Amino acid sequence: MKKATLRELALLVGGKFEGGDANLEIRGMASLEEAEEGDITFLAELKSIARLEKTRATAVIVPSLPPSLSKPVIITPNPYLAYAKIQAFFSHQPYIARGIDPRSHIGQGVKIGQEVSIYPFVFVGDRSQIGDRVVLYPGVYLGESVEVGEETILYPNVTVMDRCIIGKRVILHPGTIIGADGFGYARDGSHYVKIPQVGIVQVDDEVEIGANCAVDRAAMDKTWIKTGVKTDNLVQIGHNVTVGEDTILVAQVGIAGSTVVGSRVALGGQVGVAGHISIGDEVRVGGQSGVAQTVPPGAVISGTPAFPHREWLKASLIFQKLPEMKRTLVALEKRVRELEEAVSNQRSAFSERSKK
Amino acid sequence: MKKATLRELALLVGGKFEGGDANLEIRGMASLEEAEEGDITFLAELKSIARLEKTRATAVIVPSLPPSLSKPVIITPNPYLAYAKIQAFFSHQPYIARGIDPRSHIGQGVKIGQEVSIYPFVFVGDRSQIGDRVVLYPGVYLGESVEVGEETILYPNVTVMDRCIIGKRVILHPGTIIGADGFGYARDGSHYVKIPQVGIVQVDDEVEIGANCAVDRAAMDKTWIKTGVKTDNLVQIGHNVTVGEDTILVAQVGIAGSTVVGSRVALGGQVGVAGHISIGDEVRVGGQSGVAQTVPPGAVISGTPAFPHREWLKASLIFQKLPEMKRTLVALEKRVRELEEAVSNQRSAFSERSKK
Amino acid sequence: MKKATLRELALLVGGKFEGGDANLEIRGMASLEEAEEGDITFLAELKSIARLEKTRATAVIVPSLPPSLSKPVIITPNPYLAYAKIQAFFSHQPYIARGIDPRSHIGQGVKIGQEVSIYPFVFVGDRSQIGDRVVLYPGVYLGESVEVGEETILYPNVTVMDRCIIGKRVILHPGTIIGADGFGYARDGSHYVKIPQVGIVQVDDEVEIGANCAVDRAAMDKTWIKTGVKTDNLVQIGHNVTVGEDTILVAQVGIAGSTVVGSRVALGGQVGVAGHISIGDEVRVGGQSGVAQTVPPGAVISGTPAFPHREWLKASLIFQKLPEMKRTLVALEKRVRELEEAVSNQRSAFSERSKK
Repeated sequence: MKKATLRELALLVGGKFEGGDANLEIRGMASLEEAEEGDITFLAELKSIARLEKTRATAVIVPSLPPSLSKPVIITPNPYLAYAKIQAFFSHQPYIARGIDPRSHIGQGVKIGQEVSIYPFVFVGDRSQIGDRVVLYPGVYLGESVEVGEETILYPNVTVMDRCIIGKRVILHPGTIIGADGFGYARDGSHYVKIPQVGIVQVDDEVEIGANCAVDRAAMDKTWIKTGVKTDNLVQIGHNVTVGEDTILVAQVGIAGSTVVGSRVALGGQVGVAGHISIGDEVRVGGQSGVAQTVPPGAVISGTPAFPHREWLKASLIFQKLPEMKRTLVALEKRVRELEEAVSNQRSAFSERSKK
Repeated sequence: MKKATLRELALLVGGKFEGGDANLEIRGMASLEEAEEGDITFLAELKSIARLEKTRATAVIVPSLPPSLSKPVIITPNPYLAYAKIQAFFSHQPYIARGIDPRSHIGQGVKIGQEVSIYPFVFVGDRSQIGDRVVLYPGVYLGESVEVGEETILYPNVTVMDRCIIGKRVILHPGTIIGADGFGYARDGSHYVKIPQVGIVQVDDEVEIGANCAVDRAAMDKTWIKTGVKTDNLVQIGHNVTVGEDTILVAQVGIAGSTVVGSRVALGGQVGVAGHISIGDEVRVGGQSGVAQTVPPGAVISGTPAFPHREWLKASLIFQKLPEMKRTLVALEKRVRELEEAVSNQRSAFSERSKK
Repeated sequence: MKKATLRELALLVGGKFEGGDANLEIRGMASLEEAEEGDITFLAELKSIARLEKTRATAVIVPSLPPSLSKPVIITPNPYLAYAKIQAFFSHQPYIARGIDPRSHIGQGVKIGQEVSIYPFVFVGDRSQIGDRVVLYPGVYLGESVEVGEETILYPNVTVMDRCIIGKRVILHPGTIIGADGFGYARDGSHYVKIPQVGIVQVDDEVEIGANCAVDRAAMDKTWIKTGVKTDNLVQIGHNVTVGEDTILVAQVGIAGSTVVGSRVALGGQVGVAGHISIGDEVRVGGQSGVAQTVPPGAVISGTPAFPHREWLKASLIFQKLPEMKRTLVALEKRVRELEEAVSNQRSAFSERSKK
């Protein structure tokens, strides 16, 4: 069981300690509700400070000094980041290399680094290269001439097809497929003729890809997932797509072929993106939206097809009131018809009288 | 080949036999179209009774006594449930334990119950516990300290990560992933820092999860799928989600983190649910809807964002007529402008005359 | 390294050679941007001819003779099809049978054709039949009595459950599940009773199914994927669905149970289709649409629920302007109210005067 004093934890997160004995020992990190004595917890926003009353935690990470202090606090502008760092400290397990299980298959001409862990039932194709401290869980398949960078983890039943390149410190969650054929056919009358997909997938360093995702190999050249990209589960990335650095793809996003997604973009859950378009840097797209056209940098959009998020919010509210709007319009038409008649009658009456 | 008399089948489903020889032997259950002599079939609703004319089935399950009777019937208020029970009777195969295949991997300190079936190429991590009559198909991976309750079936290539708990009589269809890391990061400038996901997934008894689904482990505490939940294929359940008893999730549903879904809820295909909200008991959500806010119990909603289903149906119909509505509005504006001019002219003329 | 003269390539695609030495040797196919000397590239449309200026390719496939000719061309009405054929020529690898790896599991009564490739960690259930030159990659699971036609490829971690039938020259991409149970339950009070799914999946010849898809077995009878169907990744096909010949399903499409999709249909990415309906031949559905009702042949539809695509485009544009439309309507109401008052006043004034 790991331990650290509050002073040490404050140092770890670059925070300021207040309100008690900095030598108190903390044994773990837990949520407000689940924390026990000896745990530290965190409060993302000071406005929910009332939730502190019931927690059994010994100390709390807070964004600023609360008005009153019932227990020790560590003050840091980003408590969520502090939580990540302290949780990493307490949950860290030293890496122990398992070596290469004899029940795995290692092809010809394979190069394997130091201190790897290759579990049973792993298949490593000929001429593949595996970096130091790589972990390949059971059921992992690497095709021929695959490259896997150091300290990368491939969870169970991950498939990486021929010639794909996986960077360093990458995490591929279970069931994910890298480098299956892109969806490319040429029409020949009513039949479809398969276009050989001879490109690859390149996944750069520090990428994390969720469970049961699919990233297709390029028709030619490469599909490219750049450094620091994080995807949730069941995400689909088509052939020849580029996803820029530090971009976030929430679960069940689908990106069609040849589209270029910029850096630091965030696509909400179930977003669909058309093929052959560009999404600028730092664009944010609301969940379930459909992006059909190129989007300039920094845009915040929603809807299918997507347009500025604030406009979409307003339009969506009015959409809910369309039946009422329709009734208003029909009633208005009637009133206008009546007015037209009244005015016409008055005109007749007036001109009638005028004749007199 | 199994057999049962019509009397026995009526007894099995708690129905009433009418119209012929109750000792007639039935050998199987089939659809109206595919049934052969010797089969029983079913009619969910009496209004489709005309479809009975062409079936070759020997007998029919019906919801009430039809006006005329051309063949033997079993009458029961819920023919669909009777179909389920009779199909189960005919298709039931006695369970035969295969034992533990030597080509599987059983870790250290693993506890295994009676009469299990562990196929080749299964990996069972250290200290896992496997109940009686559990079936683990090829390619199944269990991490460390996983618990699997009795009579649970894990189909091929299912992955269950460390410390997750799977109940009794659970069915996990092929390719499904339980307990991959939740999608949690803290921002540090433009980079994302991974938050260790130290919680688990708990799947209660009689749950059935479809093929190629993903249920993420909690950041802390647990993601919880309660008794009797049924999910279709390619469903995504985020970290710290709770899904209530007897809830149904149709294919490709996605539920974001920390959301609580009530009991006996039904989410249609491709529905997306935002994080950190609640969906009340017995809520029903139409296919492809996006649920962005907490929903009270019993609500029936559709659309993105979702609102009452009946209102959504009306609004959707008007949406299709928006171009027409626009034309009406433009025409109306013109007519009002003309009226304004006419009234203004009359006023002038009137006041002109009044002066005289 | 393969080579072919321009004359040979023109012959291969049935095109006409122009503009230089037909005996020039070509060594590969590449995109406009990536082509090097010795490569051939292609231009799908003559209007993008300016892009030819920068390519280093030695020759170009074009749809018709360009106004000026800076390098040799092959003219063919369908350059994309020519690209498919030439790419196939250059990337073709002769098939080498690996035989049956002793680390695979071959059940009892299995029939295996000539020149197969069965990798390690493959499981073939009892009484299954495997055609000539079939390739089963690592982690493939075939249940009992499965049939796989000649020259079919099952990529890693593909699962085919009992009794399913896979045709000839079929490609199943990694992680795809064929024949998991359909999603069928009968309600018994608030509980769901599982309906045994005793049907199968039949996949006809020349079908290609993407990565991490799920095609459910029928409740009774069969789920049927007909000849030439191509699906992208993460596609969900419910029980008892029929998908007609040469139909295209883009990524993340979901089709609910018992629906019949016609031939030469194209469903865009993330489309959802309700159960128990028909989609006529040659229907085209825009991405993310929801098809709730039967669609006549040849229709082109979009939206949720879907309606004619051109109408949807118009309605979607107006949707974005709903706030403006609302303002217009409110302003119009005010103007009508003022008119009503003005007319009413005039009437009073008029009748007042008339009395005099």
